[in-house]
Amino acid sequence: MRTIELKAPYIIFTGAATEATYAKTGLGMVEWRRNQCKGQISLNGGTVDLGLPDMTLQQAVDEGVGSLIIGTASVGGAIPDSWLDTLEEAAKLGIDIVGGVHTRLSDNDRLRSAASASGAVLVDVRVPPENLPVGTGKKRTGKRILMVGTDCAVGKKYTALALERDMKTAGLNADFRASGQTGIMIAGKGIPIDAVVSDFVSGAAELLSPDNDEDHWDVIEGQGGIFHPGYGAVSFGLLTGSQPDAFVVCHEAGRTHIEGWSEFKLPTFAEVIDRTIAIGQLTNPAIRCVGASINTSALSDKEAAAYLDRQSSQLGLPCVDPVRFGAENIVAEIIDSYDLSTHLAVG
Amino acid sequence: MRTIELKAPYIIFTGAATEATYAKTGLGMVEWRRNQCKGQISLNGGTVDLGLPDMTLQQAVDEGVGSLIIGTASVGGAIPDSWLDTLEEAAKLGIDIVGGVHTRLSDNDRLRSAASASGAVLVDVRVPPENLPVGTGKKRTGKRILMVGTDCAVGKKYTALALERDMKTAGLNADFRASGQTGIMIAGKGIPIDAVVSDFVSGAAELLSPDNDEDHWDVIEGQGGIFHPGYGAVSFGLLTGSQPDAFVVCHEAGRTHIEGWSEFKLPTFAEVIDRTIAIGQLTNPAIRCVGASINTSALSDKEAAAYLDRQSSQLGLPCVDPVRFGAENIVAEIIDSYDLSTHLAVG
Repeated sequence: MRTIELKAPYIIFTGAATEATYAKTGLGMVEWRRNQCKGQISLNGGTVDLGLPDMTLQQAVDEGVGSLIIGTASVGGAIPDSWLDTLEEAAKLGIDIVGGVHTRLSDNDRLRSAASASGAVLVDVRVPPENLPVGTGKKRTGKRILMVGTDCAVGKKYTALALERDMKTAGLNADFRASGQTGIMIAGKGIPIDAVVSDFVSGAAELLSPDNDEDHWDVIEGQGGIFHPGYGAVSFGLLTGSQPDAFVVCHEAGRTHIEGWSEFKLPTFAEVIDRTIAIGQLTNPAIRCVGASINTSALSDKEAAAYLDRQSSQLGLPCVDPVRFGAENIVAEIIDSYDLSTHLAVG
Repeated sequence: MRTIELKAPYIIFTGAATEATYAKTGLGMVEWRRNQCKGQISLNGGTVDLGLPDMTLQQAVDEGVGSLIIGTASVGGAIPDSWLDTLEEAAKLGIDIVGGVHTRLSDNDRLRSAASASGAVLVDVRVPPENLPVGTGKKRTGKRILMVGTDCAVGKKYTALALERDMKTAGLNADFRASGQTGIMIAGKGIPIDAVVSDFVSGAAELLSPDNDEDHWDVIEGQGGIFHPGYGAVSFGLLTGSQPDAFVVCHEAGRTHIEGWSEFKLPTFAEVIDRTIAIGQLTNPAIRCVGASINTSALSDKEAAAYLDRQSSQLGLPCVDPVRFGAENIVAEIIDSYDLSTHLAVG
């Protein structure tokens, strides 16, 4: 029983992508784990520059690179034939291949035999570890903060990473815990919770944030939304298994309905907070909301600031847009709520 | 996208079991689907009598039997070698083999090649169908009633089957819908919801109770419990995907804690009802509780009647023990709540 674990450092493969928007995973790796990324490699025609040194696979080996991360999406989700020479060469050189493509890496004969000859590992970040346990509900040591959402794709991963960064900056002992494939690549470990069989979802969430030091915070990436008609069960299992002390509600300003489920109105902040507390109390009676994180990209700077102020007064909690203004206000709320200022002063 | 479907009628295999308690599945088949069971077959040493005609496999073929149902448990959950001659012969004769054992039937070389030669199908009722959809949350036609529980193993399947029987007796148009392996064998179809990947749980539940006639009731077997620290996510996805109009809370008299999770107190009826309504309203705003079904086997007849009376006054809803006293009181509540008496009188 373990989470997926990647071998660092990395070389990021961007294929033949010509627009950064197709290399989101690579960009995320560089934004959040720059020091783990030794270099980048693309194919002929690929023009995306992640700002990393261009590197051959042999140079990567010389630099001690452990894994090649497929940092770009492919049309249809399969492994394009044009990628195979590079991926196969990397595997032959003993570099692990890490991907989140729909086709399993190990289903490809060339990659499988190259990897088995060199001992390289083919890591599909969409595939959960085997033999996951059933959730026990037992209280674990350490603190946990979970991102929850009014919907999917509202910035839960980004918020968790920004919180980890800003908590560390404030001197707190914090680690991002990844529950989705891109998050796993960034964190170097994790479990793709939505791919876990439902009997084991809360058990997988327990594994994701194990016992830790009393002053340690797991900052857990959320999934789906508790009012989501398709993915609510994932959110439910992640919530009860994470047994969070605190949570942040993530939202996109202007979104009115569940994206792709147009018959379903988005829940209000109050509804998400009340429901999350009601369900979360099963495994952590002290669960509380410490703020909201709102993607305000549709608004001007001035509108965004006013919108966040308004939401903040209504909730009586800090509301931030971590991309625009950082997540410090939520960190301040955490320090205040859990009386951590003394601790920080002493530390 | 389809549910598991079995080929009726059946011959029930009880192996070398000498005690009925090891042949619970077989007993359930006979109790609830006697007319689908043509015969029984056991091994040397097996003494369990399901009350069916003893039958050779050749006789089963002559009687038009479609499937052999493994109606007994095995130690450790694997297929004992001693079963193989019989199962292989059945498969050679073109009889489908249906099992809920931990080892997949199709992982056994002898069974796989016998089946592939004859065209027989090896059906693992623990394995969900492939390519299940994500839940849409869209309203479906027809009515649905879901069993929910204060815990696992409190009689949800039995209650659903008793309700189906008593609803039919009352002239209602009702069908049991199976969400677990034994239920699937009894119903001849269904989906093992707890084995479905969490992203698709509510979608699988939607598939389980598709559009139907306006006067038709799906009587849906429940799973887990919404306050269960291990299996709550399964219950959540089944609830939102089932979009039930009505639900019955199932409970065992005297149980005080979640079985196997001794740190968790059992929720009260009121807690289960409130939480089920809160969550269920996402996909069916009209959801309501129509009664409780309580396993009173630990009580005397007199105590049981008094207990059910007391619970019934407290809830203001019928409380029944379907094993002892039938489920008619809940059927009466359904007829009353949904104004079906006119319909029945006309029909």
